[in-house]
Amino acid sequence: MSIKFAKTDHPVQEMIATRYSPYAFSDRPVSGADLRSIFEAARWAPSSYNEQPWSYIVATKEDAGEFERLLSCLVEPNQDWAKLAPVLALGVTRSRFARNDQENGASRHDLGAASAHLTFEATARGLSVHQMIGIVPERARELYQIPEHSEALTALAIGYAADPADAASPYRERDAAPRERKSIAAFVFTGTYGQSKPPFAEG
Amino acid sequence: MSIKFAKTDHPVQEMIATRYSPYAFSDRPVSGADLRSIFEAARWAPSSYNEQPWSYIVATKEDAGEFERLLSCLVEPNQDWAKLAPVLALGVTRSRFARNDQENGASRHDLGAASAHLTFEATARGLSVHQMIGIVPERARELYQIPEHSEALTALAIGYAADPADAASPYRERDAAPRERKSIAAFVFTGTYGQSKPPFAEG
Repeated sequence: MSIKFAKTDHPVQEMIATRYSPYAFSDRPVSGADLRSIFEAARWAPSSYNEQPWSYIVATKEDAGEFERLLSCLVEPNQDWAKLAPVLALGVTRSRFARNDQENGASRHDLGAASAHLTFEATARGLSVHQMIGIVPERARELYQIPEHSEALTALAIGYAADPADAASPYRERDAAPRERKSIAAFVFTGTYGQSKPPFAEG
Repeated sequence: MSIKFAKTDHPVQEMIATRYSPYAFSDRPVSGADLRSIFEAARWAPSSYNEQPWSYIVATKEDAGEFERLLSCLVEPNQDWAKLAPVLALGVTRSRFARNDQENGASRHDLGAASAHLTFEATARGLSVHQMIGIVPERARELYQIPEHSEALTALAIGYAADPADAASPYRERDAAPRERKSIAAFVFTGTYGQSKPPFAEG
C-alpha cells in the first residue's frame, strides 16, 4: 500500500498517513471481533453534551438480503464499486438532543467524529473504510423506519482494500492516484479568516 | 491518566481508550512542531468530494492579544476553564462547495472528521483536546471576518492535561469522573432502525 502513503509536509501517525478510501475491495470477510472493535471505537468519540447522536445500520455479505437492502440506499455510481465490499453501513444522526428535544447543531459534526474513530480503529487492523455522501436518504428512511429528527447522512464501505496497483482492477486508476490536499497555509489562520500567516513558526 | 481509561467492552487502540476532554490544563506550552503535526493530521482527513471544507483560526498564549480575542468567542462558562489552555482554535466550515457553489451537506460532518484527526495526532503526542460547541458564532464572524457561507461551529482547547486527580484543581470532580457511553447495542442496528440485534455474533 506504500504507493498510497500521503506526502505529508509534517510528520503524522502512520495510521493517518496510510489511510485512504479505496474503490476496489477484496472479497475477504471482516471478522466479528474486528467489527465489534471498530464500532467500539466509534462509541468512544467525543460529542456535544455527550449526546452520542450517531447510530449505524450495518449489513454484511453473510446476509445477502440485508446486504442488498443496504446497497440499494446508495446512489447507483456508488453501488457499482461498494457492492464488492464485505460490509456496508449507513451513518445516521439525530438532529435533536434526547434530553430536551432542542436542536443539536453538532449532530452531523459528531457523526463525522464517530466515523473517523471507526476508521482509525479499522486502519489499525489492516482494514479500509470508504465513506460516501452519495446515498438516497428517503429510501433509507423508508426501508429502515428511521424516525423523524434522525437522518441517514453517509454510507461506509468496510473491508480489505484490493492492491491499488492490480492491473485487473477496474478502479486501478482511481485507487493508484496520489492523495491530494490543500496546504496547511490554506486552512489554518490567525487574526483574520483567510490570512495565511502561519500561527506557529517553522523550524 | 490511567483513571481516565475508557471501560471498553471490546479492545480498541490505546489512543482511543485514553483520549478524554480535560477541563484542567497545565500551563506547559505546545511546541511548534506538535502544532504543525496536529494540523497536518487534520489536513489528511477524508471529505465529501475531497472538498476539505474545514478551516481553523488558531491563537497561542504567546500572543496574549490574539489569545484573548479568540477566548472572547467562547461562551462565558467555557472561557472560565479554556483560558488555562495554552492553545485555542475555532473550527470553521464552509457550507457550499468551492467548485460549484452548491450546498455541501457534509460540511459539518467533515469538520468533525478533521477535528478527530487532529485530536488523534494530539493524543499520540501526549496532548489533550477539549472541543466545545459553546461559542458565539456571530462574534467570531465579526472579529475574524468569516465570510458568508462559512461558519464557526466549534472551539478547541489544546494542551497538556493537568492531573485529573490533583486535589488543587477546581475541575477535579469533572476531570476525574469516569467516561460514560451508551452500549453498542443502543446505536448499531440491523434490519430496522432501533433494532438492537447484534449485526455480528459475539465470541
